[in-house]
Amino acid sequence: MDVLHHLQSIVGPENAIEGNRADKRYGSDETEDLYFPPEWVCKPACTNEVSAILSLAHELNIPVTTRGGGTGLAGGALPVKGGIVLSMERMNQILLIDEENLQVTVQPGVITEVLQDTLKARGLFYPPDPSSRGISYIGGNVSTNAGGPRAVKYGVVRDYVLNLEVVLADGSVIQTGANTLKNSTSYNLTQLMVGSEGTLGVITQIVLKLIPHPVFQLLLLVPFNNPVNACAAVSAIFKAGITPSALEFMERDAIAWSKEYLGQPPLDETDDTQAHLLIELDGFYEAPLYEDVEKINQVVQHFNAGEILFADDEATKKELWALRRHVAHAVKTNSVYKEEDTVVPRAKLPELLAKVKELGKIHGFRSVCYGHAGDGNLHVNILKDSLDEHTWSILLPKAIRQLFEYVHELGGTLSGEHGVGYVQKEYLDTVFSAAEIDLRRQIKKAFDPRGILNPNKLFPDS
Amino acid sequence: MDVLHHLQSIVGPENAIEGNRADKRYGSDETEDLYFPPEWVCKPACTNEVSAILSLAHELNIPVTTRGGGTGLAGGALPVKGGIVLSMERMNQILLIDEENLQVTVQPGVITEVLQDTLKARGLFYPPDPSSRGISYIGGNVSTNAGGPRAVKYGVVRDYVLNLEVVLADGSVIQTGANTLKNSTSYNLTQLMVGSEGTLGVITQIVLKLIPHPVFQLLLLVPFNNPVNACAAVSAIFKAGITPSALEFMERDAIAWSKEYLGQPPLDETDDTQAHLLIELDGFYEAPLYEDVEKINQVVQHFNAGEILFADDEATKKELWALRRHVAHAVKTNSVYKEEDTVVPRAKLPELLAKVKELGKIHGFRSVCYGHAGDGNLHVNILKDSLDEHTWSILLPKAIRQLFEYVHELGGTLSGEHGVGYVQKEYLDTVFSAAEIDLRRQIKKAFDPRGILNPNKLFPDS
Repeated sequence: MDVLHHLQSIVGPENAIEGNRADKRYGSDETEDLYFPPEWVCKPACTNEVSAILSLAHELNIPVTTRGGGTGLAGGALPVKGGIVLSMERMNQILLIDEENLQVTVQPGVITEVLQDTLKARGLFYPPDPSSRGISYIGGNVSTNAGGPRAVKYGVVRDYVLNLEVVLADGSVIQTGANTLKNSTSYNLTQLMVGSEGTLGVITQIVLKLIPHPVFQLLLLVPFNNPVNACAAVSAIFKAGITPSALEFMERDAIAWSKEYLGQPPLDETDDTQAHLLIELDGFYEAPLYEDVEKINQVVQHFNAGEILFADDEATKKELWALRRHVAHAVKTNSVYKEEDTVVPRAKLPELLAKVKELGKIHGFRSVCYGHAGDGNLHVNILKDSLDEHTWSILLPKAIRQLFEYVHELGGTLSGEHGVGYVQKEYLDTVFSAAEIDLRRQIKKAFDPRGILNPNKLFPDS
Repeated sequence: MDVLHHLQSIVGPENAIEGNRADKRYGSDETEDLYFPPEWVCKPACTNEVSAILSLAHELNIPVTTRGGGTGLAGGALPVKGGIVLSMERMNQILLIDEENLQVTVQPGVITEVLQDTLKARGLFYPPDPSSRGISYIGGNVSTNAGGPRAVKYGVVRDYVLNLEVVLADGSVIQTGANTLKNSTSYNLTQLMVGSEGTLGVITQIVLKLIPHPVFQLLLLVPFNNPVNACAAVSAIFKAGITPSALEFMERDAIAWSKEYLGQPPLDETDDTQAHLLIELDGFYEAPLYEDVEKINQVVQHFNAGEILFADDEATKKELWALRRHVAHAVKTNSVYKEEDTVVPRAKLPELLAKVKELGKIHGFRSVCYGHAGDGNLHVNILKDSLDEHTWSILLPKAIRQLFEYVHELGGTLSGEHGVGYVQKEYLDTVFSAAEIDLRRQIKKAFDPRGILNPNKLFPDS
């Protein structure tokens, strides 16, 4: 029996097809314009089917690339070695909302926003909200340790994962932990799986911690005439004892392009605003939020902030958030680009931003920067514009290498929330020593001795 | 050159001595009355010395047991295979308080409370506060993933560890991550090290996340005439949207014995109180705390609570916390005992407590239960009283096994904050499958192929 028929006998004929007959999206994600055709696309409906598929792949040494919503920005879901694309689209059930214990058990194919909306209707909050949450899967969020604007107060995905059901490379099924808030029982396999980008096992069930949903939210848009001042204000806000529920940074171009993309009137040309901070506050009582707004107002005046736009009605809040959430699409519409996901200790943001611009001058590229300033997580979008292919493909990787080396000097690293995947793996030596990479290779080998799980990812070619 | 002289050449003659000339405490910790003599006690002063010691031990296949403050309750610091006890007592410096980034870099031998007090003086907060914090080391806290009362709101140690410097078994030195709040750059070695109890490497430097220190705190002691009601009230408080900064449970005996230990007047015999909840609230604004107190008051009335003792002055707060923090010492003074560190989803606490008492009836033991109810973490103290040795050493392990199997059924596990160490390792199969244990053995092998780091710990004898 050939592989296709084997797979069809596991998931049914309609859920296993040859790659060349499958939709093109199974060979790509949101990373640049990369495309790699899979040999087979397979859509399991349950853990047992995933287990049977992996047993088969293990026996026959077939690469398996697990796929969520396909919104990754580091190429983690690309089947670069062909083989099977394991799409989790049919495993999309919210299995149990446990209001007594503030936990939810889900399958990996649930769309992040669907989960959040379902929970919110019950007064429950699952905070991590990557920009792609309208289409990304929760399983992919776990696999990349996704973040989003609210990480600054509420933490990233890994802070909410209590326990995972995982199918290992040989098809055996394990639980990584327990459904408890605390756990000191041997090695933390849960946290090892989070962010491992499908290279250690296939996540088939997820238990998430929930919290009560805050009742009040306020939003501020603060303009600055200098992006370095905006970054510096970020640390000062935290030092003043305030923990916003979001603290986002946008360069002038980021907001200007997003306005254009959304069909809004452009920024006034005479306006000398060069950057914005979008600041959200939330809580269970309203009065303290207004006191925090007053404190923030005082802090940002030390950094030459302009007039603050204050949003307490839903329409204005929605409009401001749309501006922020559409920056990435706006950049994509403007130029071919490369997105870097640098992260540093937050007070180092001004230095990081200055370095990006300095490298741009040296190597001749424009960049648009924005991101989760409260976490020190700056998305650096390098624009191709009219750069020739030689500069783009040969010189640019050198500039990126210099950027990551500098990020490492600042105590940071190359990805805050996107992952390493396929497109960042050759840069790993800018932030890790040979011993640090080798130890991770040993872990990979312990989990997946035959190397069938998402091969040619995470590690530099050796 | 013999081993002693080798070690002395690394750390100086006064900092490496033969075990039989060393203080007895280097062969024991706070776990029951266990004692294992080390062959050598060695006290390095810096990372380079740790690296040299491990290189030597690796070459000569000598067991190395790293030791913090010696306050462990699972025997993790016991040198059960002899060899070198590596005491971190001289590596006790707070290296950098980074107020801009809200981070602190410390050596592992810093006493937890010293660190907390130093930070508090600057308005900074490192929340994890195990009961032993007055003598425990931060390195030991990281190695066991310690918790404490405030975990319910602020999380456990692992939630604060950003990055670690670790000396591997062969003496090489690595960083596990970066000094950033977010990180999606390959496998999370930081979280793998946290809670690994000295079996994967020696932690020589720790970067911790800090938060602003809350300004207001209120404390309530709520009596219940039924311990199961008290446990049930815990979930109801969270469901009401309140997240206390501590939510502790104590059985009548726990509080009675602690009062006696502290020389306070005993509980009134006519008082029908059978359990207490100690509830702390904190924040940056005072008014919302009083609103939360009112909400809690309403919630607990549904569970037949008695009259609430409300503490807003420092003296009363201190007195109430002393009662809670001295329960363990009080139990120790009363009887030989075994302490179990069970943890379940918090709404399962009433069932867990009922099971403990049922097992006590079946097997003939008394127990005193208390712990971090907000986290579902119940410390079960089984008292030897006048039980004979046969019952204590043969029948009791069977009862504990039954308890852990039940805990696993409830979605829980055998240790919430103490670790597995030496005394719990034979119970591991009550909560893990063979595949789950084997995978962890493979990780151990990847880090420590010769098995020199804290041998005969964490894994059942095979």
